[in-house]
Amino acid sequence: MLTDFLLSHGMGIFVSGWMQLGVAFAVSFLIMMLFGRPFIRAMHAWQKKGQPISENVPESHRIKAGTPTMGGILLVTSILVSSILFMPMHSLVGWVALMSLVMFGAIGFADDYKKVSSQSKKASNGLSRSGRLIAEAVCVIILAYLIDRTMPAYISPMSVALPFKIIVYFGVFYYVFAYFVICGSANATNITDGLDGMLAKLYIPVLLVLVVALYGATRTGFMDTVLFLPAASGLYPVLGAAFGAVLGFLWFNSKPASIFMGDTGSLALGGFMGTVAMLLKSEIIMGIAAGMFVLILLSSFIQTMFFKITRITTGTGRRVFLRAPLHHHFEELGWSETKIVDRFFVLGILFAGLALMLLKFA
Amino acid sequence: MLTDFLLSHGMGIFVSGWMQLGVAFAVSFLIMMLFGRPFIRAMHAWQKKGQPISENVPESHRIKAGTPTMGGILLVTSILVSSILFMPMHSLVGWVALMSLVMFGAIGFADDYKKVSSQSKKASNGLSRSGRLIAEAVCVIILAYLIDRTMPAYISPMSVALPFKIIVYFGVFYYVFAYFVICGSANATNITDGLDGMLAKLYIPVLLVLVVALYGATRTGFMDTVLFLPAASGLYPVLGAAFGAVLGFLWFNSKPASIFMGDTGSLALGGFMGTVAMLLKSEIIMGIAAGMFVLILLSSFIQTMFFKITRITTGTGRRVFLRAPLHHHFEELGWSETKIVDRFFVLGILFAGLALMLLKFA
Repeated sequence: MLTDFLLSHGMGIFVSGWMQLGVAFAVSFLIMMLFGRPFIRAMHAWQKKGQPISENVPESHRIKAGTPTMGGILLVTSILVSSILFMPMHSLVGWVALMSLVMFGAIGFADDYKKVSSQSKKASNGLSRSGRLIAEAVCVIILAYLIDRTMPAYISPMSVALPFKIIVYFGVFYYVFAYFVICGSANATNITDGLDGMLAKLYIPVLLVLVVALYGATRTGFMDTVLFLPAASGLYPVLGAAFGAVLGFLWFNSKPASIFMGDTGSLALGGFMGTVAMLLKSEIIMGIAAGMFVLILLSSFIQTMFFKITRITTGTGRRVFLRAPLHHHFEELGWSETKIVDRFFVLGILFAGLALMLLKFA
Repeated sequence: MLTDFLLSHGMGIFVSGWMQLGVAFAVSFLIMMLFGRPFIRAMHAWQKKGQPISENVPESHRIKAGTPTMGGILLVTSILVSSILFMPMHSLVGWVALMSLVMFGAIGFADDYKKVSSQSKKASNGLSRSGRLIAEAVCVIILAYLIDRTMPAYISPMSVALPFKIIVYFGVFYYVFAYFVICGSANATNITDGLDGMLAKLYIPVLLVLVVALYGATRTGFMDTVLFLPAASGLYPVLGAAFGAVLGFLWFNSKPASIFMGDTGSLALGGFMGTVAMLLKSEIIMGIAAGMFVLILLSSFIQTMFFKITRITTGTGRRVFLRAPLHHHFEELGWSETKIVDRFFVLGILFAGLALMLLKFA
């Protein structure tokens, strides 16, 4: 909005993606800083009893009861406001990315709201499992359709980009692929969000890789593994805003956390991450950069599957990890919360570094 | 070493700076992972009583007595080994960067060694103040002279690069400038290293900016604020090795820390940071990226100066901060160690982001 205004008033510097990224970053970080404290107070007053901590976590987490949740509301709002301020208004790509944020944020909010407002233990599991799956599938279909519409003419619809810029027609499986990328991301970030500051610290390296991929996508021949997608330049302010908001959230979420983002935030950030990767046709690069999210999601999946299979074959269900997802396994092993988060962060940077190498070399 | 060997045996891909950076990163991280645990055991056995925690820190730090120090020895070794393995052997730039690491590491080691080996309280302050200042000054003169020798012909000796690629002849003041940059960095990292994981978390964003500056310096006309310095490409493996080693160190230094880096590590990393900035003629960009280090150093300086001045003018010395350097001030305010570190980390990323914007736009 402001970008269009400033450009039409002679501020030519705003044509630069970096400039839009920079100001959107600064504004969304400022929004978090200015409204963080009053927002936390408001959430605290509303959720007097705090988020009911899931029973499926280690003992030490019980002390976290009383910390308000739904910080994702402020996070999503701050990204929206700052993106819209600095986005070129005609950018379909930018709007699709913001849509994913709002859609998945809404699913998460329904979940959080049910958990917080209901007092009885039974109802505190949020949305019904099937309700959430259906809602997510509908979002993915809409998003995948729109993502296809943003692609330049040389990429045929319903196709997927493999490494070395090979474009493969997937047909209806394109939607299945989109489901894996977008819902996979959303659920991975969702279950990762269990320790103070962890989601933000794992998200930042992935965002960095997406920004570099965007840089490659908006310049011809600069990178070996990213297709030329000039329309994607609308993502500069959106990624900048996301970066600033996530950092601003970490300010308040750093241990001991003053607020949690809740499903509102974690599903929104995950859906957004998957959608941006698809908009940049960089799903595989993103999957590598987000290696820690993938491992955490896999650990949960393996745990459940192994339990079910062994229950059928041996009669008693067995477990691979002491507790799933992965970070709870290490808590059971006696690692402190801070050590797990920082070590996962180190590994997250390694995965991001690998993705960066592939962006230029694969 | 290996790079020269592989290149002369037809592995042309090793001519790429990114490739050298990537493998050096991986190898130095691996060295830290493989030797970290035995090294910590050895240090523990040797320093039975642990590093004497300075008396000038908050109460809560007393529990850290018993954690071994001098992790910097492993850190520096790992950077050296991995750099030399993947550096083109004729690269003067690379050797100068490694020299700064060894020189400042040695000053720090003399300090650590005196602290650890002496049992009496009086001697536990390490090197004498003047001894250390003289040693640092000598190192800076040697380094500054060699840095000047690495510059291409179009940059006149003893000059400093201002923004917009303006080169100004400084004459003998070039050495004064070098003292501020290199010793300033070394002392800033030295006093920053007071909370678990903090130095590593503030160092990573600065390293990232230096890598981007290096990318700009080795390509003509790519960036607006970095001079074209083709010889600097020898820094790719060195920065990669530093990145991997710092991440590997964070693995063991994350709270609760299994080892501290000691002055050996913090002075080495600081001297290295200043030297690399000078080798890239990007001292001002580095100064911005390292904004948190600058603020922490300033807080100590202001505290001391204000105390001395008020003692002369009013009779009793007064303080600006509850305790200096800055992070101890926030500890006194009741912030938890993890919150201070993560918030400083957020601010460190902001400074690095600002520096990145200036690299492309100033």
